[in-house]
Amino acid sequence: MILISEVGPRDGLQSISSIMPLEAKKAWIAAEYAAGVREIEVGSFVPAKLLPQLADTGEVVRYARGFNGLTVAALVPNFKGAEAAVAAGAHKITLPLSASETHSLKNLRRTHAQVMDEVRAIAQLLQTLPIAERPKFEGGLSTAFGCTIEGIVPVEKVLSLAEALMAAGCDEVGLSDTTGYANPTQVKDLVRRVRAVVGEEALSGLHLHNTRGLGLANVLAGLEVGITTFDSSLGGLGGCPFAPGASGNIVTEDLVFMLEAMGLDTGIDLSKLLHVRQILQEALPNEALYGFTPEAGLPLGFEQTADR
Amino acid sequence: MILISEVGPRDGLQSISSIMPLEAKKAWIAAEYAAGVREIEVGSFVPAKLLPQLADTGEVVRYARGFNGLTVAALVPNFKGAEAAVAAGAHKITLPLSASETHSLKNLRRTHAQVMDEVRAIAQLLQTLPIAERPKFEGGLSTAFGCTIEGIVPVEKVLSLAEALMAAGCDEVGLSDTTGYANPTQVKDLVRRVRAVVGEEALSGLHLHNTRGLGLANVLAGLEVGITTFDSSLGGLGGCPFAPGASGNIVTEDLVFMLEAMGLDTGIDLSKLLHVRQILQEALPNEALYGFTPEAGLPLGFEQTADR
Repeated sequence: MILISEVGPRDGLQSISSIMPLEAKKAWIAAEYAAGVREIEVGSFVPAKLLPQLADTGEVVRYARGFNGLTVAALVPNFKGAEAAVAAGAHKITLPLSASETHSLKNLRRTHAQVMDEVRAIAQLLQTLPIAERPKFEGGLSTAFGCTIEGIVPVEKVLSLAEALMAAGCDEVGLSDTTGYANPTQVKDLVRRVRAVVGEEALSGLHLHNTRGLGLANVLAGLEVGITTFDSSLGGLGGCPFAPGASGNIVTEDLVFMLEAMGLDTGIDLSKLLHVRQILQEALPNEALYGFTPEAGLPLGFEQTADR
Repeated sequence: MILISEVGPRDGLQSISSIMPLEAKKAWIAAEYAAGVREIEVGSFVPAKLLPQLADTGEVVRYARGFNGLTVAALVPNFKGAEAAVAAGAHKITLPLSASETHSLKNLRRTHAQVMDEVRAIAQLLQTLPIAERPKFEGGLSTAFGCTIEGIVPVEKVLSLAEALMAAGCDEVGLSDTTGYANPTQVKDLVRRVRAVVGEEALSGLHLHNTRGLGLANVLAGLEVGITTFDSSLGGLGGCPFAPGASGNIVTEDLVFMLEAMGLDTGIDLSKLLHVRQILQEALPNEALYGFTPEAGLPLGFEQTADR
């Protein structure tokens, strides 16, 4: 079983200028849940003036909690965001830490040491909660495969930060190819080396981009070293390299198609998933959607793992 | 060393309605050679009334033979095409055989048995040539991973046809994902099983499409079972799934980027290769070009294997 973590409502929506109405977000989440998606990053607890697209994240979290078995994830940039996520009832919170300190300073205006202080404070906050209400706390290592400002990010830097995140109280770490620099050999190597430091259970997920077209090849590399959770965005919402500054998330539809074609169960009904695009098209008429499988259609005779 | 076989001048040009002038074809081939490409399928010996885009294939073959160390490949649909290819001096000829007989009847208007007769006749023709002038003869198994008419193509059918092609006198066989149906698990499985029948040396190349976005993931799968030659098309010329009937070849630029990023030597200078697109843009102003890497650019700090 491979877990698809849909990040479109967070990474997709934060990368476009259109603001999706709350009702459409709800319809999107409900439709993906109905298609079988069981983890959705529904938003980010950032100040509304920075990302007005995600100003309703608290409400979205509360709504999404209504779906049985759905892991409701949210990004938190700092302690204040974590407090809000806890108040709303997120099941999982991810605090991003850029492996490139230059990138960290530019994007979060914080040094690595300052981010680690936030991590420790959040971990302490979570310890005050009853275990049943404690969200899983992930440290998300962004620019882990390279940085548009620093270029190559040394593996040793990623390893020491992964170790530091765990020591500061994270339950797990994730690796993000924020810049679309990763290649399959690097994915295998970095996953193995990070796991050697933090333990196998502490690294289960990859957040890969398709900026240079290698997204699914990098997923395959991740699968081959035992990764079981992959982030992706429906319709590749939020962009592709053809739009400067775009995020270029892996397209959920293509990812599910690849995995199911390989005989790996995602629990997702691909036909239903393909129909969810309509919600995005109607709610965001000015935004481009991407994906090969949605355009080409499913192969003749294609059967999902669940139907074999 | 991984060999990239550029098929744009054949598979790309045959899939578009624009006709590229002979001089532009020559400039394209010369520029790819200068970038380090060492195998190019320059055309197809089909009647000009069927594919006027490729009517000058004989001239193109003769021109391309002028580049030292370049393998000049051509498609031949039948014995007559093979005679023309031999006369022009092609180094390698590929006769396509569709694993789906329905597809074969529809595209070549021939049964499998009739195609095998052509294969035997071509093999006899080649035997009459001095060894130094004998082109390598490949049987190209198209629709090997699935067919848009028949759906699933049984593995046993592919195996028996591969064996029959070798018995009929081919030097090697190739597998083509004509329809973009392949997935990485299937690629590994089929390569292993075909090699078990024809021998490892008799299957070195894959012709993969990117119709459902899995092209590079399928290349990675091929690499992992020892495939060393991959077909691709500069700029993905000839289309993508967004244009019905498009071929959707893997984009050469993205393929070379992936391999070089992985530390696999292609012998191709990526910066030079990216500039070759201009020739296509100028000669085919009405045709779309594809590719992620050309749009996103090379990562900061990126070094090719040859420069490491």
